[in-house]
Amino acid sequence: MVQRKTKKAVVLLSGGLDSATTLYYARSKGYELSCLIFDYGQRHRREIIGARMLARKAGARCVLLKISLPWKGSSLLDAKQALPPAVSVRGIPTTYVPARNTIFLSFAFSYAEAIGAQSIFIGANALDFSGYPDCRPAYYKVFNSLSRVATRTGIEKKPIVVHTPLLHKTKKEIVLLAKRLGVPLALTWSCYQGGRKPCGKCDSCRLRAKGFAQAGVKDPLSD
Amino acid sequence: MVQRKTKKAVVLLSGGLDSATTLYYARSKGYELSCLIFDYGQRHRREIIGARMLARKAGARCVLLKISLPWKGSSLLDAKQALPPAVSVRGIPTTYVPARNTIFLSFAFSYAEAIGAQSIFIGANALDFSGYPDCRPAYYKVFNSLSRVATRTGIEKKPIVVHTPLLHKTKKEIVLLAKRLGVPLALTWSCYQGGRKPCGKCDSCRLRAKGFAQAGVKDPLSD
Repeated sequence: MVQRKTKKAVVLLSGGLDSATTLYYARSKGYELSCLIFDYGQRHRREIIGARMLARKAGARCVLLKISLPWKGSSLLDAKQALPPAVSVRGIPTTYVPARNTIFLSFAFSYAEAIGAQSIFIGANALDFSGYPDCRPAYYKVFNSLSRVATRTGIEKKPIVVHTPLLHKTKKEIVLLAKRLGVPLALTWSCYQGGRKPCGKCDSCRLRAKGFAQAGVKDPLSD
Repeated sequence: MVQRKTKKAVVLLSGGLDSATTLYYARSKGYELSCLIFDYGQRHRREIIGARMLARKAGARCVLLKISLPWKGSSLLDAKQALPPAVSVRGIPTTYVPARNTIFLSFAFSYAEAIGAQSIFIGANALDFSGYPDCRPAYYKVFNSLSRVATRTGIEKKPIVVHTPLLHKTKKEIVLLAKRLGVPLALTWSCYQGGRKPCGKCDSCRLRAKGFAQAGVKDPLSD
């Protein structure tokens, strides 16, 4: 008799390298996986398409939620604003979307509680990152204490835990982990722009290129 | 010269008695008001229509956001489930929507940060309430500490503060406050059901009726 998997996890999946690696990491830990993908008005749909393909490939369930942030407040959501060109911008760059991960995680809380999942996985990274507040360790520490008081399961049973397996990894380490876990790298998309090929210039492209170069791995998207 | 109001607040407005009173409370404190109303698949649109009218009447800006919670997990979102009849249900009732206030507040964080508001108002109440986790003082304490780490303004300037002026008030006190502040009570809607008249039987109707009775105020909806 095949034993039924009982460990359930909700994975926040953007379709980028980090979230794809996180998905495969959770898969390697034996979780029954439910992915949550957001269409929140980002500049292109390329990463959403990739995310759906990644979820399917990993054998995960997948929910796509469309949300709107009509107040924008980010160059990532506002086509009239230019994207910052490079990692060198000091402080929090204009691509920061106000409270984005808090919104994503609150939906993940809701989804996890409704399906009885005790774990949420998010590919946040605080080393080779853009400086966003909601990618930092202090943020996840507080968010995990919110879990104890915010949900029925947190009060009556056990709090849902937000796992951030990539939080303290360099981009190089993430690329190596992705390789080891068999992440279909050609399906991942990190560029802030859409199009057929990554722009190679934005913050996200540069961080990705650095990771692949340092890991000595060829990025399939760079062909 | 008329002095421009500089204190901005985002008010979460459901259209019920508590959120309407909270809106008028924030108004009495001199805030420039922006309301956030959610269409999240609740059983009826009556309270959404009322909420928009309340915002207009209070001279507040108003954004209506449609969000979907396809996993449901609440009798309030699932027409196939019966609503619990009375306040007497022990524990957290089936009308609890997983992580609802966390979702609402995270959007409010985003909105507040984008428009430069330092305050969020929510009509949560922990006395005459249904026992929802995200209406309790412990929850708001943690959520306010999240504010310091979750947003750009929290890190670079000042954290956004979530105000809960009704948290420790009885329904009687809320009705008396609403009267004093001139809340247009006839526009408020508390019943979980839609229809022309409140059902008078659900948890929310009973709490409202108790408040009006104890305050010695006639509920305009009871005509």
